[in-house]
Amino acid sequence: MKLWDKGIAIDYKIEAFTVGNDRELDMHIAKYDIIASKAHATMLQKVSLISEIELHELIEGLDILEQQIEDGTFIIEAEFEDVHSKIEYFLTEKYGEAGKKIHTARSRNDQVLTALHLYVKESITDIKALSNSLFNTLMEKAAHHKDDLLPGYTHLQVAMPSSFGLWFSAYAESLIDDLYLLEAAYKIADQNPLGSAAGYGSSFPIDRALTTELLDFDSLKVNVVAAQMGRGKLEKSVGYAVSSIAGTLSKMAMDVCLYNSQNFGFIKLSDAFTTGSSIMPHKKNPDVFELIRGKCNVLQSLPNQIMLLTTNLPSGYHRDLQLLKELLVPAISTLKECLEITNYATNGMEVKNDIAKDSKYDDMYSVESLNQLVQEGYSFRDAYKMVGNDIFSKKNKPTKQLSHSHIGSLGNLRLDLIQKKYSKL
Amino acid sequence: MKLWDKGIAIDYKIEAFTVGNDRELDMHIAKYDIIASKAHATMLQKVSLISEIELHELIEGLDILEQQIEDGTFIIEAEFEDVHSKIEYFLTEKYGEAGKKIHTARSRNDQVLTALHLYVKESITDIKALSNSLFNTLMEKAAHHKDDLLPGYTHLQVAMPSSFGLWFSAYAESLIDDLYLLEAAYKIADQNPLGSAAGYGSSFPIDRALTTELLDFDSLKVNVVAAQMGRGKLEKSVGYAVSSIAGTLSKMAMDVCLYNSQNFGFIKLSDAFTTGSSIMPHKKNPDVFELIRGKCNVLQSLPNQIMLLTTNLPSGYHRDLQLLKELLVPAISTLKECLEITNYATNGMEVKNDIAKDSKYDDMYSVESLNQLVQEGYSFRDAYKMVGNDIFSKKNKPTKQLSHSHIGSLGNLRLDLIQKKYSKL
Amino acid sequence: MKLWDKGIAIDYKIEAFTVGNDRELDMHIAKYDIIASKAHATMLQKVSLISEIELHELIEGLDILEQQIEDGTFIIEAEFEDVHSKIEYFLTEKYGEAGKKIHTARSRNDQVLTALHLYVKESITDIKALSNSLFNTLMEKAAHHKDDLLPGYTHLQVAMPSSFGLWFSAYAESLIDDLYLLEAAYKIADQNPLGSAAGYGSSFPIDRALTTELLDFDSLKVNVVAAQMGRGKLEKSVGYAVSSIAGTLSKMAMDVCLYNSQNFGFIKLSDAFTTGSSIMPHKKNPDVFELIRGKCNVLQSLPNQIMLLTTNLPSGYHRDLQLLKELLVPAISTLKECLEITNYATNGMEVKNDIAKDSKYDDMYSVESLNQLVQEGYSFRDAYKMVGNDIFSKKNKPTKQLSHSHIGSLGNLRLDLIQKKYSKL
Amino acid sequence: MKLWDKGIAIDYKIEAFTVGNDRELDMHIAKYDIIASKAHATMLQKVSLISEIELHELIEGLDILEQQIEDGTFIIEAEFEDVHSKIEYFLTEKYGEAGKKIHTARSRNDQVLTALHLYVKESITDIKALSNSLFNTLMEKAAHHKDDLLPGYTHLQVAMPSSFGLWFSAYAESLIDDLYLLEAAYKIADQNPLGSAAGYGSSFPIDRALTTELLDFDSLKVNVVAAQMGRGKLEKSVGYAVSSIAGTLSKMAMDVCLYNSQNFGFIKLSDAFTTGSSIMPHKKNPDVFELIRGKCNVLQSLPNQIMLLTTNLPSGYHRDLQLLKELLVPAISTLKECLEITNYATNGMEVKNDIAKDSKYDDMYSVESLNQLVQEGYSFRDAYKMVGNDIFSKKNKPTKQLSHSHIGSLGNLRLDLIQKKYSKL
Repeated sequence: MKLWDKGIAIDYKIEAFTVGNDRELDMHIAKYDIIASKAHATMLQKVSLISEIELHELIEGLDILEQQIEDGTFIIEAEFEDVHSKIEYFLTEKYGEAGKKIHTARSRNDQVLTALHLYVKESITDIKALSNSLFNTLMEKAAHHKDDLLPGYTHLQVAMPSSFGLWFSAYAESLIDDLYLLEAAYKIADQNPLGSAAGYGSSFPIDRALTTELLDFDSLKVNVVAAQMGRGKLEKSVGYAVSSIAGTLSKMAMDVCLYNSQNFGFIKLSDAFTTGSSIMPHKKNPDVFELIRGKCNVLQSLPNQIMLLTTNLPSGYHRDLQLLKELLVPAISTLKECLEITNYATNGMEVKNDIAKDSKYDDMYSVESLNQLVQEGYSFRDAYKMVGNDIFSKKNKPTKQLSHSHIGSLGNLRLDLIQKKYSKL
Repeated sequence: MKLWDKGIAIDYKIEAFTVGNDRELDMHIAKYDIIASKAHATMLQKVSLISEIELHELIEGLDILEQQIEDGTFIIEAEFEDVHSKIEYFLTEKYGEAGKKIHTARSRNDQVLTALHLYVKESITDIKALSNSLFNTLMEKAAHHKDDLLPGYTHLQVAMPSSFGLWFSAYAESLIDDLYLLEAAYKIADQNPLGSAAGYGSSFPIDRALTTELLDFDSLKVNVVAAQMGRGKLEKSVGYAVSSIAGTLSKMAMDVCLYNSQNFGFIKLSDAFTTGSSIMPHKKNPDVFELIRGKCNVLQSLPNQIMLLTTNLPSGYHRDLQLLKELLVPAISTLKECLEITNYATNGMEVKNDIAKDSKYDDMYSVESLNQLVQEGYSFRDAYKMVGNDIFSKKNKPTKQLSHSHIGSLGNLRLDLIQKKYSKL
Repeated sequence: MKLWDKGIAIDYKIEAFTVGNDRELDMHIAKYDIIASKAHATMLQKVSLISEIELHELIEGLDILEQQIEDGTFIIEAEFEDVHSKIEYFLTEKYGEAGKKIHTARSRNDQVLTALHLYVKESITDIKALSNSLFNTLMEKAAHHKDDLLPGYTHLQVAMPSSFGLWFSAYAESLIDDLYLLEAAYKIADQNPLGSAAGYGSSFPIDRALTTELLDFDSLKVNVVAAQMGRGKLEKSVGYAVSSIAGTLSKMAMDVCLYNSQNFGFIKLSDAFTTGSSIMPHKKNPDVFELIRGKCNVLQSLPNQIMLLTTNLPSGYHRDLQLLKELLVPAISTLKECLEITNYATNGMEVKNDIAKDSKYDDMYSVESLNQLVQEGYSFRDAYKMVGNDIFSKKNKPTKQLSHSHIGSLGNLRLDLIQKKYSKL
Repeated sequence: MKLWDKGIAIDYKIEAFTVGNDRELDMHIAKYDIIASKAHATMLQKVSLISEIELHELIEGLDILEQQIEDGTFIIEAEFEDVHSKIEYFLTEKYGEAGKKIHTARSRNDQVLTALHLYVKESITDIKALSNSLFNTLMEKAAHHKDDLLPGYTHLQVAMPSSFGLWFSAYAESLIDDLYLLEAAYKIADQNPLGSAAGYGSSFPIDRALTTELLDFDSLKVNVVAAQMGRGKLEKSVGYAVSSIAGTLSKMAMDVCLYNSQNFGFIKLSDAFTTGSSIMPHKKNPDVFELIRGKCNVLQSLPNQIMLLTTNLPSGYHRDLQLLKELLVPAISTLKECLEITNYATNGMEVKNDIAKDSKYDDMYSVESLNQLVQEGYSFRDAYKMVGNDIFSKKNKPTKQLSHSHIGSLGNLRLDLIQKKYSKL
């Protein structure tokens, strides 16, 4: 390892190793660190740890940086190991003493934690909005295609009549379950960790109720050790919700890829969502849905990655936790992207409307024949045997007349009830 | 493979392979299948698919089986592939036609699903009760030991003063976050899938609102395809909550094992929780906490196992889903056992009360010295340098006087606020 | 938790918690513990730690137990926490002093480790034999069906001509890759850990080279700390190989389930491998392959489970490691079962032989048209455009004459080369 | 989603989604694609699909690009979706017909596959070299510190005497097991997939034996479907080895972090490997080892991520597989970095040499007392009770005279045997 021979190269290597891509990731949380710093400064003045003039200076400086972020001109230069050093340096350069005081009664640990809590809250709000759009699209599609029949499969075997109305709204209703988990993650994020410092609080008489209010947190993460312990746990909770939504998108994408196969031919994707092959001129590949499926399946691994990173670490901060940002931030971006693209691509999906006429699917009406016999007075088990024999001797004639009327069946989707459940979220 | 040479041996192998340990697992859900069967029968009569007499017979038969379960005399004989066949056979043997009709308008799929939803609801209720006991124990321990100091670590380095009051109540407050996820799982379980049949509903005019009411579900899983899609998703949601609680128990167990080491010596476990060594007569090993840690760490893998089992399965039932019970049922039993044992062992834990006197931990007061300088008027960064120099030249004298007063700090645990947050659950 | 109120109930609970299902699992490794105990005793006599008479007694006693295991009469009574206590008790009861001496210079840790190494070696040998049977079946099927065409898919889109010859032998050749990993696991297992005692060796002058030879290990795990560190690592290495084979079986099962769907209809499964539906009389479900797929997908989680259990445990034994048996032993049984059933079910699989005649698959010949143009002198890219235009304007006429001649293509399977690669294993 | 309102924005979004960071990742495999393209062109000429002049042109063009890569001037412009399009475009621009012919008889699928196989082979060679350096460092450290005692722990309890000689060489010997898995992955990579085209071969009379020879592959991946099936499987196999090595590094890092704690104080890290705290002036944190531990623990998740991405995909290429590069390439870089840094930091680690004198560790000699009694003629079990009683009544006097002499014990490390085993790799 020649690299290590010279002192300078070594230091550079170690620094590169420890800093990692923190600066890049910190661009995602810079905004939240500034918001939290303002609240912290305001509180410091309230408890007389800084003067009103110092507060004024700090707020002014933080406003400048906030504007830079909004304008896209904010950068974290290579000499800073993270966004927090950059901000403190900027304030100290500009205001001297006031800048040196901003770190009073806090630690980089609770700075990062607080910024992450705020980042997670906003990310969840974004994910909810994107889920909402997708939910609406699925519900509209379901209403539009409520009479377009589709064979329902069990064991990948043609089983019973289904419909695109059922199929689209099933994914809408499934999404609600994911959102329950997302809500739980939001509650976990909506607790203020600021004031926990390095995980053991501080001997300064800080006012944590005030920062909770200023930062619009629902409540305080009371215990400072619990607040620090939230590092990893917050991310894992978000990870559960992310993986749950991703699981739903992936499953739908799998259906789409299958239904788009010539062997099913149930849907048609617009050219914008298909690609050709480098050697087969006839191909129209559902790349967009394959990538949604693939990206979402990888997203599903997020909680497990966080577990492997954090399991069996005794309580108290460890530098390992720094790596959580590398797992969480890209995952959230990818999920948002997948929700957006799924919504757009679902919108552009066309559905074949004469699928059920294909005699290949005649057997899916066998339960109808059976049910008719039951309604004529045969017991279920006897009717089952009669229809079974008919099918075996090819005498079964499909009763293509469907009479599904119960709630949630293909004849009675009750989208209103699904909508109502969604509205309660 | 000689085994395969003979027809009979073959069938036995295939049957053993497909049945697996279903019968054993079904003993856990038998009770719920009977409850659901009663509701289903009641509904069938209401919509005139069976007569009042038939309903009376079915309820009577189901009552007999329910009593057998309560008495511990219920068994699923080897000739039945699962509990559902057993029950239907029993009813048909006893009542003839009525028994043959119980399966009208339902499928084994929604039978299993409904029983699982009911099983999950009751399991979550049990887990909540056990968590509640542990929460109470932790809070009592925290109150009792609020003045027993402990070095707080970061990077496994002695960092700042902490206390057993903080440590115990941190785990109590952490547990609340897990319970948010458990609540989400409960909401997901609290939707009635009955009536979805094989995943595509039925053409019988069944009354799903009635069974929802009879089974005390909060709402209906409206869409029948969504209901079927809940298979795997319900289990995964429970898995998230299970793994979250398990993560908390495991972390606490790791702390205990570390603190029990002679190199820390912070706690003392009663003999009931330690074992000896087969070759070292002096050992007192914290086996109980190691097993809690180990079992909980394996429990953490539950969501990932469910993902590997269900990912990329197109919509509709697949036999693979049968294996979900094998993952979920033992996991729930293990979690309940770990909660119970953690509670009991935490109760019996003794705490050393003079740890902080050891001069090895003097450095943890350095922040106090620093904060004092700040309160005397130095900026944080200047004070940091002064104390740093003192430590380097061994001139730092620890200020062992602690003055932590803010909410959630060692001087002001505010257990009342944690209790209040818990009560809102 | 009333259970805990009484002393006796508590002890029972704790004991049940710590013992777990060790006794049951130990039945799988009892045989290997006896083999290792014989070697250990022989060595103890050689280095004069026991007398010849004592050795004679111990061997006699161990032979009796070994015979019991073979006869199926060996049991571990409830009063013993594991197989090791049971054996030592038996020997002490029967021979007094000699029995008390068998544990000299060893620990339960290296006893378990040694038994596990031996168990893993034999398990891998079994898995290889089962893989060999499956490999042979796949190769025979490939030879038999080398001319039975099948559409080859990319993106689940009909792409190019393939064949059952290719399909069957692809899984055969894929299996070889899995076996490279299995061989690596074997090498890891084939090192003798005996003599490492509790992980730090012993001050007795034991002869580890002798036990290595007696137990037929290829080499010694030299360093005693490394030997102990193998706990978890050995299991994980086996886990990698198990999950790799499982991945191959699962993928093949997925293909079978898809090809068995009416929408493909490429294969026909015998009735022994399909089941009916409780409500759809026409169904023939591929349950056996679905269960192979599901069980193998769960098996894939084995390495990750072991990682979650062992990650971040500092070096040295921890009781957590006891739980490894619970993960490994059932996984090996399941894999063996899946290999056996896959082999049997593959043998019984029938293949449709006129699939390619279906005009639905005509487009798969487009590359043939393209290649013909290339062979006539057009550049690849120009030919691509010409055929693409023909397909677009529906003018493409499929060249169903196939001329694949290169090694490994459908016209030239070269099963001999695959067989040769397999033989080198 | 306003973004989607306009056609142009949409296309950009879809393109960004499908291209992902392919261009960036392709920079890692560009070199290998060029090497493979040269072999492919040479073969095309040999079987008369291109002329000698065309071959000459193609080789010239590919040489130019190869030089650019070496010089660091090679770029993949934004208009190309991947490196393959870029190269083909360059050749076509420069040489016309010849460039258009390079893609004859291959597909992007086997191009990527072949480049990946070559990339993996070289990566494994690099990893082996880095492992070799670390192995040597560990062995030197072990030799140097063979007499520096250390308490050996079980259950995190002081157990028996160990030494830094044992500790360092245990990690060296453990690494050998990881390398068995790495060798297996190498064998899997060392098979030529070129010629499999899109996974179903080609009707051109290509000479796959020739490209196998030209590319220095040990053998051919014979079956074209098997070759394509290697996508995902190759990466997973590498993933197993990566995670295995990572597990070893992580465990060692955990030990270091623990031993660096003031509560152990067994080792001293040089300032280059520790960092300070933003609020605690006395801290020296082992960040480098914490980051090794954290990064390696995340690396352990690689096989599981690949499983989640590929499980239950039927055979044949899917676009999901494109995402494998995103998982593999950064993992390999990170592992190489971690090996390098571990080696460097281990080199700089200082060891305390009087640890065993601390009376806190006296109990670790209890087994010595016991063994002495055994050597005096007591049976093991009787001696165990006698020493146990002595410890209980505080009468045990530690026999600090150590006499461990067997192979692999602290008195007889036999580094030569470990070295010999390593040399056989």
